Amino acid sequence: MTATSDEAGRPTQVTFGIRLRERVSQRGPLCVGIDPHPSLLEAWGLADDARGLDAFASTVIEALAGQVAVLKPQSAFFERHGSSGITVLERTAAAARAGGALVLLDAKRGDIGSTMAAYADYLDPGHPLAVDAMTVSPYLGFGSLAPAVSAAKAYGGGLFVLARTSNPEGGEVQLAGSSTGSSVAQQVIDAVGALNADSRPDGSVGVVIGATLQRLDVDISMLGGPVLCPGLGAQGGDPVHLRRLFGGYEGVLLPSSSREILRHGPDLDALRSAAAAMAEALGPIV
Amino acid sequence: MTATSDEAGRPTQVTFGIRLRERVSQRGPLCVGIDPHPSLLEAWGLADDARGLDAFASTVIEALAGQVAVLKPQSAFFERHGSSGITVLERTAAAARAGGALVLLDAKRGDIGSTMAAYADYLDPGHPLAVDAMTVSPYLGFGSLAPAVSAAKAYGGGLFVLARTSNPEGGEVQLAGSSTGSSVAQQVIDAVGALNADSRPDGSVGVVIGATLQRLDVDISMLGGPVLCPGLGAQGGDPVHLRRLFGGYEGVLLPSSSREILRHGPDLDALRSAAAAMAEALGPIV
Repeated sequence: MTATSDEAGRPTQVTFGIRLRERVSQRGPLCVGIDPHPSLLEAWGLADDARGLDAFASTVIEALAGQVAVLKPQSAFFERHGSSGITVLERTAAAARAGGALVLLDAKRGDIGSTMAAYADYLDPGHPLAVDAMTVSPYLGFGSLAPAVSAAKAYGGGLFVLARTSNPEGGEVQLAGSSTGSSVAQQVIDAVGALNADSRPDGSVGVVIGATLQRLDVDISMLGGPVLCPGLGAQGGDPVHLRRLFGGYEGVLLPSSSREILRHGPDLDALRSAAAAMAEALGPIV
Repeated sequence: MTATSDEAGRPTQVTFGIRLRERVSQRGPLCVGIDPHPSLLEAWGLADDARGLDAFASTVIEALAGQVAVLKPQSAFFERHGSSGITVLERTAAAARAGGALVLLDAKRGDIGSTMAAYADYLDPGHPLAVDAMTVSPYLGFGSLAPAVSAAKAYGGGLFVLARTSNPEGGEVQLAGSSTGSSVAQQVIDAVGALNADSRPDGSVGVVIGATLQRLDVDISMLGGPVLCPGLGAQGGDPVHLRRLFGGYEGVLLPSSSREILRHGPDLDALRSAAAAMAEALGPIV
Protein backbone atom coordinates (compact mmCIF):
# COMPACT_ATOMS: atom_id res chain seq x y z
CA MET A 1 0.00 0.00 0.00
CA THR A 2 1.17 3.52 -0.71
CA ALA A 3 2.27 5.19 2.52
CA THR A 4 3.49 8.57 3.62
CA SER A 5 3.93 10.08 7.07
CA ASP A 6 1.93 12.46 9.22
CA GLU A 7 3.22 15.55 11.05
CA ALA A 8 4.68 13.42 13.83
CA GLY A 9 6.53 11.25 11.32
CA ARG A 10 4.27 8.23 11.80
CA PRO A 11 3.44 6.35 8.61
CA THR A 12 -0.06 7.05 7.35
CA GLN A 13 -1.88 5.67 4.39
CA VAL A 14 -2.74 7.69 1.38
CA THR A 15 -6.46 7.13 1.01
CA PHE A 16 -7.92 5.45 -2.03
CA GLY A 17 -9.63 8.69 -3.02
CA ILE A 18 -6.32 10.53 -3.16
CA ARG A 19 -4.54 7.71 -4.95
CA LEU A 20 -7.32 7.54 -7.52
CA ARG A 21 -7.11 11.30 -8.14
CA GLU A 22 -3.34 11.04 -8.61
CA ARG A 23 -3.51 8.10 -10.95
CA VAL A 24 -6.24 9.69 -13.05
CA SER A 25 -4.24 12.95 -13.23
CA GLN A 26 -1.25 11.03 -14.54
CA ARG A 27 -2.98 8.57 -16.83
CA GLY A 28 -6.40 9.95 -17.70
CA PRO A 29 -9.74 8.81 -16.32
CA LEU A 30 -10.15 5.46 -18.07
CA CYS A 31 -11.03 2.23 -16.25
CA VAL A 32 -10.69 -0.92 -18.35
CA GLY A 33 -12.67 -3.98 -17.37
CA ILE A 34 -10.99 -7.39 -17.47
CA ASP A 35 -13.97 -9.49 -18.52
CA PRO A 36 -12.80 -12.84 -19.87
CA HIS A 37 -16.16 -13.71 -21.35
CA PRO A 38 -16.23 -17.09 -23.16
CA SER A 39 -16.84 -15.35 -26.50
CA LEU A 40 -13.82 -13.07 -25.98
CA LEU A 41 -11.60 -16.02 -25.07
CA GLU A 42 -12.71 -17.65 -28.30
CA ALA A 43 -12.09 -14.50 -30.32
CA TRP A 44 -8.56 -14.37 -28.91
CA GLY A 45 -7.98 -18.02 -29.85
CA LEU A 46 -7.92 -19.16 -26.23
CA ALA A 47 -9.55 -22.13 -24.51
CA ASP A 48 -12.42 -21.49 -22.09
CA ASP A 49 -10.45 -22.81 -19.12
CA ALA A 50 -8.11 -21.51 -16.40
CA ARG A 51 -5.13 -21.59 -18.77
CA GLY A 52 -7.00 -19.52 -21.37
CA LEU A 53 -8.11 -17.17 -18.62
CA ASP A 54 -4.52 -16.74 -17.49
CA ALA A 55 -3.28 -15.99 -21.00
CA PHE A 56 -6.09 -13.49 -21.49
CA ALA A 57 -5.55 -11.66 -18.22
CA SER A 58 -1.75 -11.65 -18.57
CA THR A 59 -2.08 -10.04 -21.99
CA VAL A 60 -4.39 -7.32 -20.71
CA ILE A 61 -2.01 -6.62 -17.81
CA GLU A 62 1.05 -6.53 -20.06
CA ALA A 63 -0.69 -4.16 -22.43
CA LEU A 64 -2.43 -1.83 -20.01
CA ALA A 65 -1.21 -1.98 -16.39
CA GLY A 66 1.41 0.65 -17.13
CA GLN A 67 -0.98 2.86 -19.05
CA VAL A 68 -4.50 3.10 -17.60
CA ALA A 69 -5.51 4.41 -14.19
CA VAL A 70 -7.70 1.53 -13.13
CA LEU A 71 -8.15 -2.09 -14.15
CA LYS A 72 -11.41 -3.73 -13.14
CA PRO A 73 -11.48 -7.54 -13.19
CA GLN A 74 -15.00 -8.95 -13.23
CA SER A 75 -15.08 -11.62 -10.53
CA ALA A 76 -17.86 -13.66 -12.18
CA PHE A 77 -15.73 -14.60 -15.18
CA PHE A 78 -12.98 -15.93 -12.92
CA GLU A 79 -15.39 -17.65 -10.52
CA ARG A 80 -16.75 -19.61 -13.50
CA HIS A 81 -13.57 -21.64 -13.37
CA GLY A 82 -13.67 -22.37 -9.64
CA SER A 83 -10.57 -22.24 -7.48
CA SER A 84 -8.23 -22.33 -10.50
CA GLY A 85 -10.02 -19.25 -11.83
CA ILE A 86 -9.52 -17.52 -8.49
CA THR A 87 -5.82 -18.41 -8.59
CA VAL A 88 -5.63 -16.60 -11.92
CA LEU A 89 -7.56 -13.67 -10.46
CA GLU A 90 -5.08 -13.43 -7.59
CA ARG A 91 -2.15 -13.34 -10.02
CA THR A 92 -3.99 -10.83 -12.21
CA ALA A 93 -4.68 -8.41 -9.37
CA ALA A 94 -1.13 -8.60 -8.05
CA ALA A 95 0.40 -8.11 -11.50
CA ALA A 96 -1.88 -5.18 -12.30
CA ARG A 97 -0.93 -3.40 -9.09
CA ALA A 98 2.74 -4.16 -9.60
CA GLY A 99 2.40 -2.64 -13.06
CA GLY A 100 1.08 0.62 -11.64
CA ALA A 101 -2.69 0.39 -12.13
CA LEU A 102 -5.19 0.55 -9.31
CA VAL A 103 -7.30 -2.61 -9.13
CA LEU A 104 -11.05 -2.40 -8.65
CA LEU A 105 -12.63 -5.81 -8.07
CA ASP A 106 -16.07 -5.85 -9.67
CA ALA A 107 -17.81 -8.27 -7.32
CA LYS A 108 -20.98 -6.43 -6.21
CA ARG A 109 -20.89 -8.14 -2.83
CA GLY A 110 -23.53 -7.31 -0.25
CA ASP A 111 -24.33 -8.94 3.08
CA ILE A 112 -24.61 -8.05 6.75
CA GLY A 113 -22.45 -8.06 9.85
CA SER A 114 -19.48 -10.38 10.01
CA THR A 115 -20.30 -11.75 6.56
CA MET A 116 -20.00 -8.30 5.01
CA ALA A 117 -16.77 -7.85 6.96
CA ALA A 118 -15.45 -11.10 5.48
CA TYR A 119 -16.13 -9.87 1.94
CA ALA A 120 -14.40 -6.58 2.74
CA ASP A 121 -11.23 -8.49 3.56
CA TYR A 122 -10.40 -8.10 -0.14
CA LEU A 123 -9.25 -4.60 0.89
CA ASP A 124 -6.76 -6.08 3.37
CA PRO A 125 -3.25 -5.93 1.83
CA GLY A 126 -2.59 -9.36 3.35
CA HIS A 127 -5.43 -11.04 1.43
CA PRO A 128 -4.31 -13.44 -1.34
CA LEU A 129 -6.59 -11.41 -3.63
CA ALA A 130 -5.81 -7.94 -2.27
CA VAL A 131 -7.31 -5.10 -4.31
CA ASP A 132 -7.48 -1.32 -4.04
CA ALA A 133 -11.25 -1.10 -4.22
CA MET A 134 -14.36 -3.21 -4.80
CA THR A 135 -17.95 -2.76 -5.89
CA VAL A 136 -20.67 -3.49 -3.32
CA SER A 137 -24.47 -3.81 -3.44
CA PRO A 138 -26.85 -2.11 -0.99
CA TYR A 139 -30.00 -4.27 -1.34
CA LEU A 140 -29.79 -5.05 2.40
CA GLY A 141 -29.76 -1.32 3.16
CA PHE A 142 -26.86 1.10 2.99
CA GLY A 143 -26.14 0.61 6.68
CA SER A 144 -25.44 -3.08 6.09
CA LEU A 145 -22.28 -1.98 4.25
CA ALA A 146 -20.80 -0.42 7.41
CA PRO A 147 -18.22 -3.21 7.95
CA ALA A 148 -16.93 -2.58 4.42
CA VAL A 149 -16.74 1.15 5.07
CA SER A 150 -14.68 0.43 8.19
CA ALA A 151 -12.38 -1.88 6.26
CA ALA A 152 -11.90 0.72 3.51
CA LYS A 153 -10.94 3.25 6.14
CA ALA A 154 -8.60 0.89 7.98
CA TYR A 155 -6.76 -0.27 4.87
CA GLY A 156 -6.85 2.86 2.73
CA GLY A 157 -9.11 1.09 0.25
CA GLY A 158 -12.10 2.20 -1.76
CA LEU A 159 -15.71 1.14 -2.32
CA PHE A 160 -18.07 1.79 -5.19
CA VAL A 161 -21.67 1.31 -4.10
CA LEU A 162 -24.25 0.39 -6.73
CA ALA A 163 -26.58 3.36 -7.00
CA ARG A 164 -28.19 3.96 -10.41
CA THR A 165 -27.46 1.54 -13.22
CA SER A 166 -28.47 1.92 -16.83
CA ASN A 167 -29.85 -1.56 -17.53
CA PRO A 168 -33.56 -1.24 -18.40
CA GLU A 169 -34.85 -3.00 -15.24
CA GLY A 170 -32.60 -1.08 -12.81
CA GLY A 171 -35.19 1.56 -12.03
CA GLU A 172 -37.63 -0.93 -10.49
CA VAL A 173 -35.56 -0.96 -7.33
CA GLN A 174 -33.33 2.10 -7.70
CA LEU A 175 -36.08 4.61 -8.44
CA ALA A 176 -38.53 3.26 -5.89
CA GLY A 177 -39.38 5.94 -3.35
CA SER A 178 -38.63 5.94 0.33
CA SER A 179 -41.00 7.29 2.94
CA THR A 180 -38.98 10.54 2.82
CA GLY A 181 -39.73 10.89 -0.87
CA SER A 182 -36.28 10.44 -2.36
CA SER A 183 -35.43 7.40 -4.48
CA VAL A 184 -33.42 4.44 -3.27
CA ALA A 185 -30.55 5.51 -5.56
CA GLN A 186 -30.63 9.05 -4.16
CA GLN A 187 -30.60 7.70 -0.59
CA VAL A 188 -27.48 5.69 -1.44
CA ILE A 189 -25.83 8.76 -2.94
CA ASP A 190 -26.73 10.91 0.07
CA ALA A 191 -25.40 8.29 2.49
CA VAL A 192 -22.13 8.10 0.57
CA GLY A 193 -21.97 11.90 0.58
CA ALA A 194 -22.22 11.90 4.37
CA LEU A 195 -19.33 9.44 4.63
CA ASN A 196 -17.19 11.63 2.37
CA ALA A 197 -17.98 14.86 4.23
CA ASP A 198 -14.43 15.32 5.51
CA SER A 199 -12.62 14.34 2.32
CA ARG A 200 -14.67 15.78 -0.52
CA PRO A 201 -14.28 15.79 -3.46
CA ASP A 202 -11.76 12.97 -3.10
CA GLY A 203 -13.57 10.68 -0.71
CA SER A 204 -12.78 6.99 -0.84
CA VAL A 205 -16.36 5.81 -1.15
CA GLY A 206 -17.85 6.20 -4.58
CA VAL A 207 -20.93 5.05 -6.42
CA VAL A 208 -21.76 3.24 -9.64
CA ILE A 209 -23.91 5.18 -12.11
CA GLY A 210 -24.41 3.86 -15.63
CA ALA A 211 -22.77 5.76 -18.48
CA THR A 212 -25.71 5.08 -20.78
CA LEU A 213 -28.54 6.54 -18.72
CA GLN A 214 -30.70 8.77 -20.88
CA ARG A 215 -30.61 11.43 -18.20
CA LEU A 216 -29.16 11.70 -14.72
CA ASP A 217 -32.18 11.19 -12.46
CA VAL A 218 -30.19 11.63 -9.25
CA ASP A 219 -28.31 14.56 -7.74
CA ILE A 220 -24.62 13.84 -7.16
CA SER A 221 -23.51 17.36 -6.30
CA MET A 222 -22.93 16.43 -2.64
CA LEU A 223 -21.40 12.99 -3.29
CA GLY A 224 -17.83 14.05 -2.59
CA GLY A 225 -16.27 10.94 -4.11
CA PRO A 226 -15.67 9.10 -7.37
CA VAL A 227 -18.30 7.84 -9.79
CA LEU A 228 -17.68 4.65 -11.71
CA CYS A 229 -19.57 4.87 -15.01
CA PRO A 230 -19.74 1.49 -16.74
CA GLY A 231 -20.93 1.20 -20.32
CA LEU A 232 -18.46 3.39 -22.17
CA GLY A 233 -18.34 2.33 -25.78
CA ALA A 234 -21.72 0.67 -25.51
CA GLN A 235 -24.86 2.22 -26.99
CA GLY A 236 -24.89 5.88 -26.03
CA GLY A 237 -21.93 5.67 -23.65
CA ASP A 238 -19.63 8.12 -25.37
CA PRO A 239 -17.63 11.08 -24.01
CA VAL A 240 -20.15 13.61 -25.33
CA HIS A 241 -22.99 11.86 -23.55
CA LEU A 242 -20.90 11.58 -20.36
CA ARG A 243 -20.26 15.31 -20.40
CA ARG A 244 -23.97 15.89 -20.79
CA LEU A 245 -24.75 13.59 -17.84
CA PHE A 246 -21.97 14.58 -15.46
CA GLY A 247 -20.59 17.91 -16.70
CA GLY A 248 -19.30 20.08 -13.85
CA TYR A 249 -19.02 17.32 -11.26
CA GLU A 250 -15.97 18.02 -9.12
CA GLY A 251 -15.16 14.46 -8.02
CA VAL A 252 -13.37 11.88 -10.13
CA LEU A 253 -15.47 10.45 -12.95
CA LEU A 254 -14.22 7.03 -13.90
CA PRO A 255 -15.78 5.84 -17.15
CA SER A 256 -15.30 2.14 -17.66
CA SER A 257 -15.06 0.13 -20.83
CA SER A 258 -14.55 -3.57 -21.36
CA ARG A 259 -15.31 -5.12 -24.72
CA GLU A 260 -14.85 -1.91 -26.68
CA ILE A 261 -11.17 -2.12 -25.68
CA LEU A 262 -10.73 -5.87 -25.30
CA ARG A 263 -12.03 -6.69 -28.77
CA HIS A 264 -8.78 -5.19 -30.11
CA GLY A 265 -6.70 -7.93 -28.44
CA PRO A 266 -4.72 -10.05 -28.17
CA ASP A 267 -2.37 -7.69 -30.01
CA LEU A 268 -0.62 -5.59 -27.36
CA ASP A 269 -0.20 -2.49 -29.49
CA ALA A 270 -3.80 -2.61 -30.65
CA LEU A 271 -5.01 -2.85 -27.05
CA ARG A 272 -2.79 0.07 -26.04
CA SER A 273 -3.91 2.20 -28.98
CA ALA A 274 -7.57 1.52 -28.30
CA ALA A 275 -7.18 2.47 -24.63
CA ALA A 276 -5.12 5.55 -25.48
CA ALA A 277 -7.66 6.74 -28.04
CA MET A 278 -10.49 6.35 -25.58
CA ALA A 279 -8.58 8.03 -22.74
CA GLU A 280 -7.82 10.97 -25.04
CA ALA A 281 -11.43 11.29 -26.10
CA LEU A 282 -12.38 11.32 -22.43
CA GLY A 283 -9.75 13.85 -21.43
CA PRO A 284 -11.92 16.93 -21.13
CA ILE A 285 -14.61 15.35 -18.94
CA VAL A 286 -12.64 15.48 -15.71
CA MET B 1 -28.03 -34.45 -10.72
CA THR B 2 -31.12 -36.46 -9.85
CA ALA B 3 -32.80 -37.63 -13.05
CA THR B 4 -35.91 -39.59 -14.00
CA SER B 5 -37.66 -40.10 -17.34
CA ASP B 6 -40.67 -38.55 -18.99
CA GLU B 7 -43.57 -40.43 -20.62
CA ALA B 8 -41.52 -41.09 -23.75
CA GLY B 9 -38.69 -42.54 -21.67
CA ARG B 10 -36.36 -39.57 -22.19
CA PRO B 11 -34.38 -38.57 -19.12
CA THR B 12 -35.72 -35.46 -17.41
CA GLN B 13 -34.44 -33.62 -14.42
CA VAL B 14 -36.27 -33.53 -11.17
CA THR B 15 -36.56 -29.82 -10.47
CA PHE B 16 -34.94 -28.25 -7.44
CA GLY B 17 -38.38 -27.43 -6.04
CA ILE B 18 -39.39 -31.11 -6.08
CA ARG B 19 -36.06 -32.29 -4.71
CA LEU B 20 -36.29 -29.77 -1.90
CA ARG B 21 -39.81 -30.91 -1.01
CA GLU B 22 -38.66 -34.55 -0.95
CA ARG B 23 -35.60 -33.85 1.15
CA VAL B 24 -37.56 -31.78 3.64
CA SER B 25 -40.25 -34.49 3.89
CA GLN B 26 -37.56 -37.05 4.72
CA ARG B 27 -35.35 -34.98 6.97
CA GLY B 28 -37.36 -32.07 8.29
CA PRO B 29 -37.16 -28.44 7.17
CA LEU B 30 -33.83 -27.40 8.68
CA CYS B 31 -31.09 -25.64 6.71
CA VAL B 32 -27.75 -25.40 8.51
CA GLY B 33 -25.34 -22.66 7.51
CA ILE B 34 -21.65 -23.51 7.15
CA ASP B 35 -20.19 -20.20 8.34
CA PRO B 36 -16.54 -20.66 9.30
CA HIS B 37 -16.30 -17.31 11.03
CA PRO B 38 -12.87 -16.60 12.57
CA SER B 39 -14.36 -16.69 16.08
CA LEU B 40 -15.92 -20.11 15.44
CA LEU B 41 -12.66 -21.48 14.08
CA GLU B 42 -11.00 -20.29 17.26
CA ALA B 43 -13.70 -21.80 19.45
CA TRP B 44 -13.17 -25.12 17.70
CA GLY B 45 -9.42 -24.90 18.28
CA LEU B 46 -8.66 -24.38 14.59
CA ALA B 47 -6.34 -21.98 12.83
CA ASP B 48 -7.84 -19.16 10.75
CA ASP B 49 -6.43 -20.51 7.50
CA ALA B 50 -7.43 -22.86 4.68
CA ARG B 51 -6.44 -25.91 6.71
CA GLY B 52 -8.59 -24.81 9.64
CA LEU B 53 -11.41 -24.06 7.23
CA ASP B 54 -11.13 -27.55 5.77
CA ALA B 55 -11.20 -29.21 9.18
CA PHE B 56 -14.22 -27.12 10.16
CA ALA B 57 -16.20 -27.82 7.00
CA SER B 58 -15.31 -31.52 6.96
CA THR B 59 -16.59 -31.87 10.51
CA VAL B 60 -19.89 -30.17 9.70
CA ILE B 61 -20.31 -32.41 6.63
CA GLU B 62 -19.48 -35.57 8.56
CA ALA B 63 -21.93 -34.65 11.28
CA LEU B 64 -24.82 -33.30 9.24
CA ALA B 65 -24.77 -34.15 5.51
CA GLY B 66 -26.64 -37.39 6.18
CA GLN B 67 -29.12 -35.74 8.51
CA VAL B 68 -30.31 -32.29 7.45
CA ALA B 69 -32.17 -31.33 4.28
CA VAL B 70 -29.97 -28.43 3.21
CA LEU B 71 -26.45 -27.23 3.99
CA LYS B 72 -25.72 -23.60 3.20
CA PRO B 73 -22.05 -22.64 2.95
CA GLN B 74 -21.48 -18.90 3.24
CA SER B 75 -19.19 -17.98 0.36
CA ALA B 76 -17.67 -14.93 2.11
CA PHE B 77 -15.97 -17.02 4.80
CA PHE B 78 -14.29 -19.19 2.17
CA GLU B 79 -13.41 -16.25 -0.11
CA ARG B 80 -11.53 -14.71 2.83
CA HIS B 81 -8.85 -17.31 2.22
CA GLY B 82 -8.55 -16.74 -1.53
CA SER B 83 -8.19 -19.59 -3.98
CA SER B 84 -7.27 -22.08 -1.22
CA GLY B 85 -10.51 -21.17 0.53
CA ILE B 86 -12.42 -21.81 -2.70
CA THR B 87 -10.71 -25.18 -3.05
CA VAL B 88 -12.07 -26.05 0.39
CA LEU B 89 -15.51 -24.76 -0.63
CA GLU B 90 -15.45 -26.99 -3.73
CA ARG B 91 -14.64 -30.05 -1.61
CA THR B 92 -17.26 -29.04 0.96
CA ALA B 93 -20.05 -28.71 -1.60
CA ALA B 94 -19.18 -32.01 -3.29
CA ALA B 95 -18.97 -33.88 0.01
CA ALA B 96 -22.24 -32.41 1.27
CA ARG B 97 -24.06 -33.49 -1.88
CA ALA B 98 -22.45 -36.92 -1.81
CA GLY B 99 -23.64 -37.23 1.78
CA GLY B 100 -27.24 -36.61 0.79
CA ALA B 101 -27.82 -32.95 1.63
CA LEU B 102 -28.84 -30.33 -0.89
CA VAL B 103 -26.28 -27.53 -1.10
CA LEU B 104 -27.39 -23.90 -1.19
CA LEU B 105 -24.50 -21.52 -1.86
CA ASP B 106 -25.09 -18.31 0.06
CA ALA B 107 -23.39 -15.86 -2.28
CA LYS B 108 -26.00 -13.13 -2.91
CA ARG B 109 -24.67 -12.55 -6.42
CA GLY B 110 -26.34 -10.00 -8.64
CA ASP B 111 -25.27 -8.56 -11.98
CA ILE B 112 -26.58 -8.20 -15.53
CA GLY B 113 -26.40 -10.05 -18.83
CA SER B 114 -23.47 -12.35 -19.47
CA THR B 115 -21.98 -11.51 -16.07
CA MET B 116 -25.10 -12.74 -14.28
CA ALA B 117 -25.01 -15.82 -16.52
CA ALA B 118 -21.40 -16.45 -15.45
CA TYR B 119 -22.38 -16.37 -11.76
CA ALA B 120 -25.26 -18.74 -12.47
CA ASP B 121 -22.77 -21.31 -13.77
CA TYR B 122 -22.59 -22.50 -10.14
CA LEU B 123 -25.81 -24.35 -10.99
CA ASP B 124 -24.08 -26.22 -13.84
CA PRO B 125 -23.27 -29.77 -12.67
CA GLY B 126 -19.96 -29.48 -14.51
CA HIS B 127 -18.76 -26.49 -12.45
CA PRO B 128 -15.92 -27.21 -10.00
CA LEU B 129 -18.16 -25.68 -7.34
CA ALA B 130 -21.48 -27.15 -8.48
CA VAL B 131 -24.35 -26.54 -6.08
CA ASP B 132 -28.09 -27.24 -6.04
CA ALA B 133 -29.14 -23.65 -5.45
CA MET B 134 -27.76 -20.20 -4.73
CA THR B 135 -28.89 -16.91 -3.25
CA VAL B 136 -29.07 -13.89 -5.58
CA SER B 137 -29.60 -10.15 -5.10
CA PRO B 138 -32.05 -8.05 -7.16
CA TYR B 139 -30.64 -4.52 -6.66
CA LEU B 140 -30.21 -4.23 -10.45
CA GLY B 141 -33.90 -5.07 -10.91
CA PHE B 142 -35.56 -8.47 -10.83
CA GLY B 143 -35.31 -8.76 -14.62
CA SER B 144 -31.51 -8.62 -14.39
CA LEU B 145 -31.67 -12.09 -12.81
CA ALA B 146 -33.17 -13.64 -15.96
CA PRO B 147 -29.94 -15.42 -16.98
CA ALA B 148 -29.88 -17.11 -13.57
CA VAL B 149 -33.53 -18.11 -13.93
CA SER B 150 -32.68 -19.69 -17.30
CA ALA B 151 -29.71 -21.53 -15.79
CA ALA B 152 -31.84 -22.82 -12.91
CA LYS B 153 -34.35 -24.17 -15.41
CA ALA B 154 -31.71 -25.70 -17.66
CA TYR B 155 -29.85 -27.45 -14.86
CA GLY B 156 -32.69 -28.29 -12.48
CA GLY B 157 -31.23 -25.88 -9.94
CA GLY B 158 -32.77 -23.41 -7.54
CA LEU B 159 -32.52 -19.73 -6.71
CA PHE B 160 -33.39 -17.81 -3.56
CA VAL B 161 -33.87 -14.13 -4.33
CA LEU B 162 -33.30 -11.63 -1.51
CA ALA B 163 -36.68 -10.09 -0.77
CA ARG B 164 -37.26 -8.96 2.82
CA THR B 165 -34.47 -9.30 5.33
CA SER B 166 -34.70 -8.71 9.04
CA ASN B 167 -31.58 -6.60 9.59
CA PRO B 168 -32.63 -3.16 10.84
CA GLU B 169 -31.55 -1.25 7.71
CA GLY B 170 -33.14 -3.68 5.23
CA GLY B 171 -36.37 -1.73 4.94
CA GLU B 172 -34.67 1.35 3.47
CA VAL B 173 -34.50 -0.40 0.11
CA GLN B 174 -36.91 -3.30 0.49
CA LEU B 175 -39.90 -1.29 1.72
CA ALA B 176 -39.41 1.61 -0.66
CA GLY B 177 -42.45 1.99 -2.87
CA SER B 178 -42.66 1.57 -6.62
CA SER B 179 -44.82 3.75 -8.83
CA THR B 180 -47.48 1.02 -8.67
CA GLY B 181 -47.60 1.36 -4.92
CA SER B 182 -46.20 -1.99 -3.82
CA SER B 183 -42.87 -2.26 -2.05
CA VAL B 184 -39.64 -3.42 -3.69
CA ALA B 185 -39.81 -6.63 -1.64
CA GLN B 186 -43.40 -7.28 -2.74
CA GLN B 187 -42.44 -6.71 -6.38
CA VAL B 188 -39.70 -9.32 -6.02
CA ILE B 189 -42.15 -11.76 -4.46
CA ASP B 190 -44.75 -11.15 -7.18
CA ALA B 191 -42.16 -11.62 -9.92
CA VAL B 192 -41.01 -14.90 -8.36
CA GLY B 193 -44.66 -15.94 -8.09
CA ALA B 194 -45.12 -15.39 -11.81
CA LEU B 195 -42.11 -17.60 -12.57
CA ASN B 196 -43.50 -20.38 -10.37
CA ALA B 197 -47.00 -20.22 -11.87
CA ASP B 198 -46.77 -23.67 -13.47
CA SER B 199 -45.08 -25.43 -10.58
CA ARG B 200 -46.64 -24.02 -7.43
CA PRO B 201 -46.27 -24.64 -4.54
CA ASP B 202 -43.00 -26.40 -5.40
CA GLY B 203 -41.45 -23.91 -7.78
CA SER B 204 -37.68 -23.81 -8.01
CA VAL B 205 -37.31 -20.09 -7.43
CA GLY B 206 -37.69 -19.02 -3.85
CA VAL B 207 -37.08 -15.92 -1.80
CA VAL B 208 -35.19 -14.95 1.34
CA ILE B 209 -37.30 -13.52 4.15
CA GLY B 210 -35.78 -13.01 7.58
CA ALA B 211 -36.96 -15.29 10.39
CA THR B 212 -36.74 -12.48 12.92
CA LEU B 213 -39.01 -9.88 11.29
CA GLN B 214 -41.44 -8.51 13.82
CA ARG B 215 -44.28 -8.99 11.38
CA LEU B 216 -44.55 -10.18 7.80
CA ASP B 217 -44.98 -6.96 5.82
CA VAL B 218 -45.27 -8.72 2.47
CA ASP B 219 -47.84 -11.12 1.01
CA ILE B 220 -46.35 -14.47 0.01
CA SER B 221 -49.61 -16.31 -0.68
CA MET B 222 -48.95 -16.35 -4.44
CA LEU B 223 -45.22 -17.08 -4.23
CA GLY B 224 -45.49 -20.74 -5.19
CA GLY B 225 -41.96 -21.62 -4.09
CA PRO B 226 -39.71 -22.05 -1.08
CA VAL B 227 -38.85 -19.39 1.50
CA LEU B 228 -35.41 -19.39 3.08
CA CYS B 229 -35.72 -17.88 6.56
CA PRO B 230 -32.31 -17.06 8.03
CA GLY B 231 -31.95 -16.14 11.66
CA LEU B 232 -33.29 -19.19 13.42
CA GLY B 233 -31.89 -19.35 16.90
CA ALA B 234 -31.12 -15.66 16.87
CA GLN B 235 -33.19 -13.14 18.80
CA GLY B 236 -36.84 -13.88 18.10
CA GLY B 237 -36.17 -16.48 15.44
CA ASP B 238 -37.85 -19.43 17.09
CA PRO B 239 -40.37 -21.96 15.79
CA VAL B 240 -43.26 -20.23 17.55
CA HIS B 241 -42.41 -16.92 15.93
CA LEU B 242 -41.97 -18.60 12.53
CA ARG B 243 -45.44 -20.12 12.81
CA ARG B 244 -46.83 -16.70 13.62
CA LEU B 245 -45.08 -15.16 10.58
CA PHE B 246 -45.64 -17.89 8.02
CA GLY B 247 -48.43 -20.12 9.38
CA GLY B 248 -50.52 -21.65 6.59
CA TYR B 249 -48.04 -21.05 3.78
CA GLU B 250 -48.25 -24.01 1.40
CA GLY B 251 -44.73 -23.85 -0.05
CA VAL B 252 -41.59 -25.15 1.65
CA LEU B 253 -40.40 -23.01 4.55
CA LEU B 254 -36.71 -23.48 5.09
CA PRO B 255 -35.58 -21.96 8.38
CA SER B 256 -31.84 -21.60 8.55
CA SER B 257 -29.51 -21.62 11.50
CA SER B 258 -25.77 -21.27 11.67
CA ARG B 259 -24.11 -20.44 14.96
CA GLU B 260 -26.90 -21.81 17.13
CA ILE B 261 -25.97 -25.25 15.74
CA LEU B 262 -22.27 -24.75 15.01
CA ARG B 263 -21.42 -23.58 18.52
CA HIS B 264 -22.01 -27.19 19.64
CA GLY B 265 -19.04 -28.43 17.56
CA PRO B 266 -16.57 -29.82 16.91
CA ASP B 267 -18.12 -32.80 18.69
CA LEU B 268 -20.03 -34.77 16.04
CA ASP B 269 -22.71 -36.07 18.36
CA ALA B 270 -23.31 -32.67 19.87
CA LEU B 271 -23.72 -31.14 16.40
CA ARG B 272 -26.14 -33.90 15.40
CA SER B 273 -28.16 -33.57 18.60
CA ALA B 274 -28.42 -29.80 18.25
CA ALA B 275 -29.62 -30.11 14.64
CA ALA B 276 -32.04 -32.90 15.52
CA ALA B 277 -33.52 -30.94 18.40
CA MET B 278 -34.03 -27.91 16.22
CA ALA B 279 -35.52 -29.92 13.35
CA GLU B 280 -37.94 -31.54 15.78
CA ALA B 281 -38.96 -28.20 17.23
CA LEU B 282 -39.59 -26.97 13.68
CA GLY B 283 -41.52 -30.06 12.63
CA PRO B 284 -45.04 -28.65 12.79
CA ILE B 285 -44.33 -25.50 10.78
CA VAL B 286 -44.30 -27.19 7.37
